[in-house]
Amino acid sequence: MAQVAADRRDVDFVLHEQLNVEQLSQFEKFEDFNKKTIDMVVSEARNLAVKELLPYLKEADEEGCSFDNGKVTVPKAFHRAYKLFCEGEWIAMCDDPKWGGQGMPATVALAANNYFNGANYPFMLQNILSHGAGKLVESFGTDKQKELFLEKIYTGVWGGSMLLTEPEAGSDVGALTTKAVKNDDGTYSITGNKIFITSGENDLVENIIHPVLARIEGAPPGTAGISLFLVPKFWVHDDGSQGDFNDVVCTGIEEKMGIHGSPTCSLALGGKGQCKGTLLGRENKGMSAMFVMMNEARLHVGMQGFACASASYLNALNYARERVQGAALTAPRGSAGVPIIQHPDIRRILLTMKSYSEGMRSILFYVGLMEDMIKVSDNETDRVRYQGIIDVLIPVAKGYITDRAFEMCSHGVHVFGGYGFTREYPQEQLLRDCKITQIYEGTNGIQAMDLLGRKLGLNKGRAFTDLLAEVQKTIDVAGESKDLKPMADMVEVCVVKLMETAKALGMMMGAKKISSAFVQAHPFLDVTGDTLMAWMLLWRAVIATQKLAANPKKKDVSFYEGQLKSAQFFINSVLPVTKGKMDVIIAGDTAALDISEEAFG
Amino acid sequence: MAQVAADRRDVDFVLHEQLNVEQLSQFEKFEDFNKKTIDMVVSEARNLAVKELLPYLKEADEEGCSFDNGKVTVPKAFHRAYKLFCEGEWIAMCDDPKWGGQGMPATVALAANNYFNGANYPFMLQNILSHGAGKLVESFGTDKQKELFLEKIYTGVWGGSMLLTEPEAGSDVGALTTKAVKNDDGTYSITGNKIFITSGENDLVENIIHPVLARIEGAPPGTAGISLFLVPKFWVHDDGSQGDFNDVVCTGIEEKMGIHGSPTCSLALGGKGQCKGTLLGRENKGMSAMFVMMNEARLHVGMQGFACASASYLNALNYARERVQGAALTAPRGSAGVPIIQHPDIRRILLTMKSYSEGMRSILFYVGLMEDMIKVSDNETDRVRYQGIIDVLIPVAKGYITDRAFEMCSHGVHVFGGYGFTREYPQEQLLRDCKITQIYEGTNGIQAMDLLGRKLGLNKGRAFTDLLAEVQKTIDVAGESKDLKPMADMVEVCVVKLMETAKALGMMMGAKKISSAFVQAHPFLDVTGDTLMAWMLLWRAVIATQKLAANPKKKDVSFYEGQLKSAQFFINSVLPVTKGKMDVIIAGDTAALDISEEAFG
Repeated sequence: MAQVAADRRDVDFVLHEQLNVEQLSQFEKFEDFNKKTIDMVVSEARNLAVKELLPYLKEADEEGCSFDNGKVTVPKAFHRAYKLFCEGEWIAMCDDPKWGGQGMPATVALAANNYFNGANYPFMLQNILSHGAGKLVESFGTDKQKELFLEKIYTGVWGGSMLLTEPEAGSDVGALTTKAVKNDDGTYSITGNKIFITSGENDLVENIIHPVLARIEGAPPGTAGISLFLVPKFWVHDDGSQGDFNDVVCTGIEEKMGIHGSPTCSLALGGKGQCKGTLLGRENKGMSAMFVMMNEARLHVGMQGFACASASYLNALNYARERVQGAALTAPRGSAGVPIIQHPDIRRILLTMKSYSEGMRSILFYVGLMEDMIKVSDNETDRVRYQGIIDVLIPVAKGYITDRAFEMCSHGVHVFGGYGFTREYPQEQLLRDCKITQIYEGTNGIQAMDLLGRKLGLNKGRAFTDLLAEVQKTIDVAGESKDLKPMADMVEVCVVKLMETAKALGMMMGAKKISSAFVQAHPFLDVTGDTLMAWMLLWRAVIATQKLAANPKKKDVSFYEGQLKSAQFFINSVLPVTKGKMDVIIAGDTAALDISEEAFG
Repeated sequence: MAQVAADRRDVDFVLHEQLNVEQLSQFEKFEDFNKKTIDMVVSEARNLAVKELLPYLKEADEEGCSFDNGKVTVPKAFHRAYKLFCEGEWIAMCDDPKWGGQGMPATVALAANNYFNGANYPFMLQNILSHGAGKLVESFGTDKQKELFLEKIYTGVWGGSMLLTEPEAGSDVGALTTKAVKNDDGTYSITGNKIFITSGENDLVENIIHPVLARIEGAPPGTAGISLFLVPKFWVHDDGSQGDFNDVVCTGIEEKMGIHGSPTCSLALGGKGQCKGTLLGRENKGMSAMFVMMNEARLHVGMQGFACASASYLNALNYARERVQGAALTAPRGSAGVPIIQHPDIRRILLTMKSYSEGMRSILFYVGLMEDMIKVSDNETDRVRYQGIIDVLIPVAKGYITDRAFEMCSHGVHVFGGYGFTREYPQEQLLRDCKITQIYEGTNGIQAMDLLGRKLGLNKGRAFTDLLAEVQKTIDVAGESKDLKPMADMVEVCVVKLMETAKALGMMMGAKKISSAFVQAHPFLDVTGDTLMAWMLLWRAVIATQKLAANPKKKDVSFYEGQLKSAQFFINSVLPVTKGKMDVIIAGDTAALDISEEAFG
């Protein structure tokens, strides 16, 4: 059967052959997760994704969400899927079993999420949001808050959301005006308007627990005066019973380009003065709580974008194998048509999609492994190192990956020709759905600023060099193989030049040419991502070379040879372009800064 | 007032300052088109576009087309717009006044089309198709066919379409199976099924004249056996009166990603054996007729894509000037928010969009000028040279421009942040509408093959070198200016390397490594387009420099300085990347060819 949603062989390759996730089972925390268990988890996720989520992708896109007098209805098919998803206990895969979690390694959860998001990413948004809300409660809640909310959220009885954005406070969160006033009973009365709230209102769950960013009366302006509150849709009494409607009114949902199955809500809090919440964490520390959650949220968005790209690739591959159109380029005139996978331009597109899909999967799963390593590590030095690597990787995993994912989805439309533009095939929807991943959870422009402004200099630059040291390890191993040496050399040249590029940007900032540096922030994100992609593909090639030397099964021979081709293609066809991009950054043209506003037109 | 649809100052710049279109009025054919008349035409087009087309862009997208029992309804608002468009005689702007045309230079018509497509490209499709059908009649029709159809089509009383594609014959037109059988009265009975037919059925016009590609019984297989027929929806008697329904049944319309205002129809011809047509041109010469029309059609598609990008830029620019979000990067902590046009990353995006919009406009209008020059030229040598330049430029004008246009539309979404993803703003629609321009009228993969396989070697390579000789002229002039010399040198390096790249591809083909060459076809289209973009922007900079030296008005100073910034940005920030892409082509990696089909996954 043709593969859909995600490539199982490749998922297994990353889990077991590249990252050796089973190693985690030697630690007590993950002792239940030997290879057999891991494979079972992935198989179950795959079954649910392919049988229960994928079939409703198109239907949900067409049906969309509807809004009527404060009530939001999600696509009909999502109700059944949601029930099954909760029954499978998939919302809190990595979390404490005490609260309804499954305690599995993050790396394995990412594999499951690869399937879920590849099958139906709009459906997944509710679950991701719920998990994030739960995680906030788990991380910053009082014992009482945990007792009241956590298990219900993690098991899907109640949903979660995240109320940050306001009409005048998007990328600039610090500009928010939602107000909190302390009541005598210790609760806070909340008033304000929030927009772009995923799953802010819906008919899937009995109650919705909204983490809300607001400013306590008298708090400082900007991000320093923001606190976090838990605001349930229906009040929850101390005994856990559900109380009155808490004056969180949905005033509308957005008409969007994609993710039509997921409601994007505008919410008015306290319009009748009846909305209250409890403080989550400490006063004025709302932004730091957000930062703690940010890595998880951004990694998820990278997964969403990547999953669209990866699904688009598999669809394109299946179609290219079946669609007959045109004789082979070198066949005699009048020859019969052949499947389009035989045409050079289609092969170039497919190998582009393949290599990016594979590299992106490795980057994302690798972040998961670093998270798991932190959990099992017995010393602070290692934990700091792992965390630093994660912190550097996050803007790449979110920003670079979703930028490339959108391009891959675009390629995936083209393989289908005119059919790709029609709703008959999933390709145009994947492209539409993928688009928002470049924008939400911090636009990719913000990701680029995060990489350059925060992550490059993190721990005095140590985090960035720690990551590049990992890259170097792979280069060194690859360099020992005669076949891989030329590729290893090219990746090494790229890494050296990346350091040079980073240094050039550092000098600009040192010379107070802040804008000159930041106008290159997005290009710098691009070249950093390219370098890490090359690393991952080279790493895969190293393993493939080792495996090929050990006489694998025929089917595996194809797979491993495909790994070598992906690496060869990317290193030979992308890295020279990356080099050009690095030259541009180092040269540091300032036309975009110098041009007057009038001169734009 | 903020500019919308197209930038008038820039349109005027290309028409008058860069291309000096008024020069055409010295020739009898265009003697009526002095500067004043040209400006009046553009102003009228602008008025119609901004007042009558743009306001219905969103409405038509949401309303879409509907299909009911063979009948197709287009958006309500299009009826009024169509009436006004016909009254303005805009369908046949460049054609013979004898048949209802306006006889204007193609360059001027492109400026008008820039406005029309920038305002509402889905609306424009009917008009473009009608014009193409009319042009076929004018080029290949008998006197009788012209008398019966031409004026009615050119004046919009009847519509036109183009029936090429079939379910199994898309990029491979030669695979079509629609059949024509000669009747005793000289007509042909037509049977077959066509898909993806723009405006194939609609309620805008009284009758639709379908040019149809079909194979006469007994004709050779492949493209050599294809003939062209005129098949009206309602038969037209010899006295011009309208007869019976001609058995051209619309069986459905596509649900698509975009251009919802334009119906994409499936048509069944002769299902009841009652469909007939008349031969247009000669038997088995249908494909050569298509080739004659192809340049016009592809140039139009380039215009469509570009117009989306250019409109997206103007929207983004207007928004960036008004949207306040975040303090300036270098402002003290706690400073007030500023319009986002002040942020470096937004400036980089805007200047990217600006420079591409400008370069694309110049390329398209330049093709128009070449067409006009052919019409007024008094010698065959020049005409061949102009035609050769057009032929080389067409795959760039269609393929390269729509590829870049889609990217620009994507940038245009990002400037709006989360709002860009909503239907509240036009950006997401422009992105969706733009997508099909990369696919139809020959996918951009086909355009790339056209450039490499046909155009590079056209007239023994003379056409390509003629074009580059024009580029060199600009480089030489720019090189005389001290300020422009560094940019001129970089463009020259790029041209030299483009020749080297072309030679490398030529050597591959000479060595019968056909697939190795063609796997680089699309990258070669990219680098050719980049080079021509740099040419156009350098050319603009040359003029701007001259004008700035002559103490222009204050507003013009900004405009000309903006021209210098566009050139500086593109040459410094894009050409080094182009160089990397050329290195890739020259190196000629064959991973995409060597990988086995199984290894794709």
